[in-house]
Amino acid sequence: MSDQNTLNHLQTVTESLESGETMQIRYLLNGALPAQDVARLLESSPPKERKLLWELVEAKNEGEVLQYLSEDIGIQFMKNMDTERLIAVSEHFESDDLADLLQHLPEKIVKEVLASMSIQDRTRVEGLLSYSEDSAGGLMNTDTITIRPNITVDIAFRYLRRHASLPDMTDSLLVVSRSDRLLGTLPLTKLLVSDLNATIRDIMETEFTVIVAETPASEVAQLFEKMDLVSAPVIDSNTKKLLGRITIDDVVDVIRDEAEHSMLSMAGLDDDEDTFSPIMKTTKRRAVWLGINLITAFIASYVIGLFQATLDQVVALAILMPIVASMGGIAGSQVLTLVIRGIALNQIGATNTRWLLNRELIVGLLNGLLWSTVIAILTALWFDNIKIAYIIAGAIVINLLFAAATGTLLPILLKRIGIDPALAGSVILTTVTDVVGFLSFLGLATIFLI
Amino acid sequence: MSDQNTLNHLQTVTESLESGETMQIRYLLNGALPAQDVARLLESSPPKERKLLWELVEAKNEGEVLQYLSEDIGIQFMKNMDTERLIAVSEHFESDDLADLLQHLPEKIVKEVLASMSIQDRTRVEGLLSYSEDSAGGLMNTDTITIRPNITVDIAFRYLRRHASLPDMTDSLLVVSRSDRLLGTLPLTKLLVSDLNATIRDIMETEFTVIVAETPASEVAQLFEKMDLVSAPVIDSNTKKLLGRITIDDVVDVIRDEAEHSMLSMAGLDDDEDTFSPIMKTTKRRAVWLGINLITAFIASYVIGLFQATLDQVVALAILMPIVASMGGIAGSQVLTLVIRGIALNQIGATNTRWLLNRELIVGLLNGLLWSTVIAILTALWFDNIKIAYIIAGAIVINLLFAAATGTLLPILLKRIGIDPALAGSVILTTVTDVVGFLSFLGLATIFLI
Repeated sequence: MSDQNTLNHLQTVTESLESGETMQIRYLLNGALPAQDVARLLESSPPKERKLLWELVEAKNEGEVLQYLSEDIGIQFMKNMDTERLIAVSEHFESDDLADLLQHLPEKIVKEVLASMSIQDRTRVEGLLSYSEDSAGGLMNTDTITIRPNITVDIAFRYLRRHASLPDMTDSLLVVSRSDRLLGTLPLTKLLVSDLNATIRDIMETEFTVIVAETPASEVAQLFEKMDLVSAPVIDSNTKKLLGRITIDDVVDVIRDEAEHSMLSMAGLDDDEDTFSPIMKTTKRRAVWLGINLITAFIASYVIGLFQATLDQVVALAILMPIVASMGGIAGSQVLTLVIRGIALNQIGATNTRWLLNRELIVGLLNGLLWSTVIAILTALWFDNIKIAYIIAGAIVINLLFAAATGTLLPILLKRIGIDPALAGSVILTTVTDVVGFLSFLGLATIFLI
Repeated sequence: MSDQNTLNHLQTVTESLESGETMQIRYLLNGALPAQDVARLLESSPPKERKLLWELVEAKNEGEVLQYLSEDIGIQFMKNMDTERLIAVSEHFESDDLADLLQHLPEKIVKEVLASMSIQDRTRVEGLLSYSEDSAGGLMNTDTITIRPNITVDIAFRYLRRHASLPDMTDSLLVVSRSDRLLGTLPLTKLLVSDLNATIRDIMETEFTVIVAETPASEVAQLFEKMDLVSAPVIDSNTKKLLGRITIDDVVDVIRDEAEHSMLSMAGLDDDEDTFSPIMKTTKRRAVWLGINLITAFIASYVIGLFQATLDQVVALAILMPIVASMGGIAGSQVLTLVIRGIALNQIGATNTRWLLNRELIVGLLNGLLWSTVIAILTALWFDNIKIAYIIAGAIVINLLFAAATGTLLPILLKRIGIDPALAGSVILTTVTDVVGFLSFLGLATIFLI
């Protein structure tokens, strides 16, 4: 069951594709491998192979595979389907996943797919389409099992036995009033150990976590993590009526996306970046980021240019100046990363920012003193010039202090004005550490050396 | 229920601490706030406040709060407890969490804690202590509900009703033979809809996910994500006997840690980095990373130093050279980040590496051509020197190609030789893009300009 298997299957499939033997691939894709593994296989394939493999998945299996495919790739495939196939495929989806996908398809097609559904299903999906993908409403399913408070445990058992099956991840029954208001929850583990004659009202839990449909997905994830939930009911914020429930499998996706978001954004990559996206798409996305960083680089060069006369006289400065900028950049990005994660975990607020800034300034000062001593000694030995050694040491300390202050305050400030600190933070930080690094080093040199 | 509350509580608590009013804090910490929130509050406090707050948590509540505290901080508190308090506190823990914490305490104390437990509990915890924290055995709990296959559904219900309660996150009963071999699983959702006269053997699922105790935690997490599991049974690899079960709440922690690991490692930070760790601890950890990066910086400076004569003649080179290094660094770290994530998701293997390398080289070339044109035009305008414009354009293209190749192949190579690509990747990449950047730019200048 190891995931290494995906890569082994990929090897088999790639070799078969190259030799044109589609028999074995068809066999693997249509039954031999579980749909989850087929989805992983598609995700791990370059565009051309991905397309070929998808064509070998039989129509009847498409829906199940799509269910497990990452949204970005699933939408690409669905955009190339005719409406009839889309309708067939849509029957495999849970209502929340279907709503997510439909949001990305043209309106005309969405209407046709909706028209093909039973009135009950259509109402469900239309209800879900009204919520943002990144909210509790967008994460929820409508397949809840509800009961009334006044029946006995024995009758509840009989009622459940009338179902052919219960929805996946049902860990609690939801106790509702006649007007669909949520009165309590009844974990199956509690139902199973209760006296048959007790009423649901006697044994239901009245202190439970309930989520309003508009809650952002990230808050939902934090709640699930904090309270160790498997599922949680969602209600309408106005009517307080039960709308559906969110299950941990969808929340796990949110948690992974959120945790990956910072890392990918800091490198200017999209959250839903497909590892194997085609050349032109990749080139365009990367080009933008390089362009933004080029502005930073030119600003740094402009600062160096201010000291052209100084550089002209002492070439050693040109050799050493990248050290000052680089040490500042490294120190700053450590602080930046730590603070971005702290913000994402909701740990950083008005009360502890000052403590954090103080700590980072002291840490910056201590490390500045330590490494500027080392750098000064090496410089003095290399260039046989004690003055340059003093100057680079001073510049290193100055830059590490600026790096500490910027790394701490910049993400907090960006967050407050509504800019994603993970995305904008590293570019701005580098600009600061480059400019301060070159300015302090070449500036001190101009004052004391020339 | 929003997590913003933690920060609000933090505000209240900080103000009360400052004014010395401990009454309200005691009230908040000992009952008014759920233990999860008290844990979050402690995690969001600087060291001194954290210690003060912990002293205000009453002995009887300590165990519950510790349960929810991040391991690093929990261990710190536990190291300061006497054995008697440790024993009292340990009663609050699930066996897997207790085993994790005991692994970090001195052996003598562990023995005393174990000696205080009932024989049954001790055997359990000792069994868990034999597994690595990062394996399925380290993640599992021993509190399974097992039944025999030959009883009827009706008798199973009666058997369950004899329990005062079922363990949290019990979504399935585990069907075992007389010799404790796992024969099948029975989801509660299936039990509840089954005919009372059916036998467990008739309705149990015989195709289920089972995890061997030595499985690495990361594989367990991937399995849970892929199969949408709430819990999964763990067996001994030799005897095939049932040992326990892993539940999704522990797996969610693994998923978050894994996803955060890459981001933190790329900045040279520890996985369990405490946002509010004290100054000296932080300084030491950061110093090491700065020292490693200093070597990189000196290597780059050494390369520049090789071209001292050239720089002496054309000072414009010194002004422009950071642009070449910086563009290479940015382009390379985009590729590096993408590949590191791809490796973590198990998407990258022998068959698609070549495709990935090809794509990255072409993307590097295209973006190299685009941005080198822009840079050349700006350079020509700035320095009124067409030759330098050609030279910087050539150097940019060369560096972006090296960045693409290094960003793709380096993490794959590091992974193969057992070095964490997230930790070592960025330092090595920067060294390559700096060296290649300065070497190509100043080298081309020496050939064509001097």
